[in-house]
Amino acid sequence: MTWLLLPSSGVGGIQPKSYPCFKVQFWSNLPLPYQTFDGDNLMGEHANTLASQVSAEIEARIRAGGLAVGARLPSLRQGAQQFGVAKNTMVEAYDRLVARGVLSVRPGSGFYVRQQFPAPAIPERPHLQQAVDAATLLSEQLERRFRTRIGEGRPPSAWIEGVVATRHLRQALAGHGGKSGQHYDDPAGYLPLRETLAGMLAERAIKVDPTNIVMTFGGNHAFDLIIRQLVRPGDPVLVESPGYYPLFAKLKLIGARMIPVTRTLRGPEPAMLDAAAKASGARVFFTQSLAQNPTGGSLDLPTAHQILRVAEENGLTIVEDDIFGDLLPATAPRLAALDGSQRVLLVGSFAKTLSATLRVGYVAGPPQLLGALQAMKMLTVVNSCGHTERVVNATLADGAYRRHLGRLRRRIMDSAGILSAWARELGMAVHVDPAGGYYAWLRLPDGVSDSDLARRAAERDIFLAPGSIFYPDGSPGQSRHLRMNVAYAGDARVPRFLAEQCFG
Amino acid sequence: MTWLLLPSSGVGGIQPKSYPCFKVQFWSNLPLPYQTFDGDNLMGEHANTLASQVSAEIEARIRAGGLAVGARLPSLRQGAQQFGVAKNTMVEAYDRLVARGVLSVRPGSGFYVRQQFPAPAIPERPHLQQAVDAATLLSEQLERRFRTRIGEGRPPSAWIEGVVATRHLRQALAGHGGKSGQHYDDPAGYLPLRETLAGMLAERAIKVDPTNIVMTFGGNHAFDLIIRQLVRPGDPVLVESPGYYPLFAKLKLIGARMIPVTRTLRGPEPAMLDAAAKASGARVFFTQSLAQNPTGGSLDLPTAHQILRVAEENGLTIVEDDIFGDLLPATAPRLAALDGSQRVLLVGSFAKTLSATLRVGYVAGPPQLLGALQAMKMLTVVNSCGHTERVVNATLADGAYRRHLGRLRRRIMDSAGILSAWARELGMAVHVDPAGGYYAWLRLPDGVSDSDLARRAAERDIFLAPGSIFYPDGSPGQSRHLRMNVAYAGDARVPRFLAEQCFG
Repeated sequence: MTWLLLPSSGVGGIQPKSYPCFKVQFWSNLPLPYQTFDGDNLMGEHANTLASQVSAEIEARIRAGGLAVGARLPSLRQGAQQFGVAKNTMVEAYDRLVARGVLSVRPGSGFYVRQQFPAPAIPERPHLQQAVDAATLLSEQLERRFRTRIGEGRPPSAWIEGVVATRHLRQALAGHGGKSGQHYDDPAGYLPLRETLAGMLAERAIKVDPTNIVMTFGGNHAFDLIIRQLVRPGDPVLVESPGYYPLFAKLKLIGARMIPVTRTLRGPEPAMLDAAAKASGARVFFTQSLAQNPTGGSLDLPTAHQILRVAEENGLTIVEDDIFGDLLPATAPRLAALDGSQRVLLVGSFAKTLSATLRVGYVAGPPQLLGALQAMKMLTVVNSCGHTERVVNATLADGAYRRHLGRLRRRIMDSAGILSAWARELGMAVHVDPAGGYYAWLRLPDGVSDSDLARRAAERDIFLAPGSIFYPDGSPGQSRHLRMNVAYAGDARVPRFLAEQCFG
Repeated sequence: MTWLLLPSSGVGGIQPKSYPCFKVQFWSNLPLPYQTFDGDNLMGEHANTLASQVSAEIEARIRAGGLAVGARLPSLRQGAQQFGVAKNTMVEAYDRLVARGVLSVRPGSGFYVRQQFPAPAIPERPHLQQAVDAATLLSEQLERRFRTRIGEGRPPSAWIEGVVATRHLRQALAGHGGKSGQHYDDPAGYLPLRETLAGMLAERAIKVDPTNIVMTFGGNHAFDLIIRQLVRPGDPVLVESPGYYPLFAKLKLIGARMIPVTRTLRGPEPAMLDAAAKASGARVFFTQSLAQNPTGGSLDLPTAHQILRVAEENGLTIVEDDIFGDLLPATAPRLAALDGSQRVLLVGSFAKTLSATLRVGYVAGPPQLLGALQAMKMLTVVNSCGHTERVVNATLADGAYRRHLGRLRRRIMDSAGILSAWARELGMAVHVDPAGGYYAWLRLPDGVSDSDLARRAAERDIFLAPGSIFYPDGSPGQSRHLRMNVAYAGDARVPRFLAEQCFG
């Protein structure tokens, strides 16, 4: 038994007795339970148990230099005696220290002090940090439970869940496993679903072959694959301003240089797109033609033609976000419909119309780009989820989804009407798109800061989305708008709060 | 009607008549059906229809300069007459050209030649190309249907599917949608499943809190998140040689510099790991402790201790691939079990034991790293699939999975026995791990090239995985091994082929 016990630094207010070297008695008569301390060596949930107090004390001694590396600790019996705890408690205390890497155990011999090494650091990543900052609202949405949630980007789960029935699951299950002995899924995604999607897109005058559709884990995964394929660090990239901030976060992550193009309610400004493309040399433009996030505005046909012409002249690839596509009229103008599969990548998803928990999205577009995206998908995630793709296909095939969309559209229109009514009553300008979609863009009166307002709202448990965060260079107070989710327009606390804050 | 028709270049062997300017008669008396040509302007499946022949001919004329940009085409009636086809066929021919972006249509006016712009290019990405090259075998596996598939990395789907029953799907469905009105899923993944996993890991002496587990879309997605979080372009990264080539592909994609550490059947060489870490300054080491891909070898306890010590001394984060974990004894040595949540990220998956179509995997490890991975996941894919996570949890909870694992283990052991038997008979050395797993590492006789052999096998519809591809700098013929998937050992064509090729 070769170990040294140096004087403790007195953490926790306990002074050890001094012991002769080579003959260790350990601490005796510990005043247990004693006050726990706030250090990082205690896990919150165990802070009040005896074992954790004992283990914390031992760890503090070791860290303070009281026990050298390689020193053996007292036996379980001795330890229990010295701490005045049951032997089981001592077992648990030592076990915790082994689990934390503080002690090692040699079977049949006892517990020893392990050499301590600093935990490995996460490398400094300025782009990553900026991207995480930009995604703060996303994380707020996903994590915090506000009572009033008109700032949310997503529909209430009650509006979109419940369409997938057990019979669809059974149908999906019949497609894999079981008797069919079917092989692994197609890496581009479940082919029958891609065929169904090609049919749905054809209704929107978008002609695409099922082999030029790649399934993804939702729309954000589609953007991620596209960005990794088409954008290199430092590249200029054209984005709408205001626009979809989770996209900005992904572009920041890769270190792209975002070039803003003003988004009006009728679409992106064609002249500005042209000038920005020529000045920056950017080769990719991200846009959401219909029911845009955050303005709710939809592209009109003349603007669509101009945008496509600018893209052609400047050799741009257009990434067209159509995640509300299933909710909007088939005749609404989409760049992909005008394009003839030359340069538009269309991104779709079922996350905002069918189920947020299924994570089924897709990219459709020109063969050469789709082939590259499929290779990127195979490299990074190998395959998508054949099971959920079968579930979605079964739900589409029996008409349940189409009926659900009809109900959902009426619900959105009713809610949009409610929002329009109270905005009018408050004397605030609001854009609600006649084509549908969840977003409305509410203009605040002069002198009201969007970010101040959102902060005050949060204190009242109301989640507001300030317009500023939707700008690629988003500084607080940059906008005098709020993005409203019409699905929550029926909550009377919102107009009450706005009346009081803006006109009170 | 202002358009020009210049002499055709004669594609397809048809010579146009000459027409006066401003008075277009179009081609008449076309010898239809005529031979289709191999150009890239015909889609294979329509090549034999009349409409595609007509549209191909028109497109060829335009590309040859026979019709200027902005020129109007003959009316449908005129066109049909000139080509000697029905009007419907002419409609389809024009529609195809609109879809291909060759013509534009002005409602009420007719069809016009659109300006042609080159398709947008995919940026040059040397790293990406290398990564795709490295993933060739992966794509072979996923796409090509060999009759004999002993080179496959995955188990036969019949071995692993069919465990998820309708009742699990019903249970999973009950957890979302329906009456519960449950909100969006936790971005780290379905918490009850993470709790189940924490319990399963505890059986392997790996202590991890459910909050320090992040669910992913399978093991490869987990590696992708980890690499994007921890590795920057140009960073040195330690990898096993031979090792898991889809991992190498992901590291190439990000532009990492791979530093090989020799992998023996007992684990990575600790002294080599130490030297390589010190010489390169690498901070991350990727390893598969048990049933390694491709050697099938498993880490022994003394090596595990040494590896962990080297990692501690060099400040390495270890990424431990444990995707066969559920198949292997709980007592098998895993670095994560020795580590005490300091520096080991453990990657698990259900793809090779439960279902390849569910895409459910996870990372478990130290809190600071897991928090960062969760942020990366939220930025890039927002969330995992709550539905499939509920399905997996329901399958684990009722014991179906555990019973299935027992059957699967026996099946693997039986097959491994068959493989050992014929390898012995052939006089070839083969490593089959007593702990289990799908892989065996078969040594070829002197003078036999692994890559030549695999090529010859492919000609006989036998898929062999040559050892060379599992080396990070994999040049053909570098190895004298084949990776065998024991699940296919019962196919007598393999030993017959080897006998003939190696000893014939």
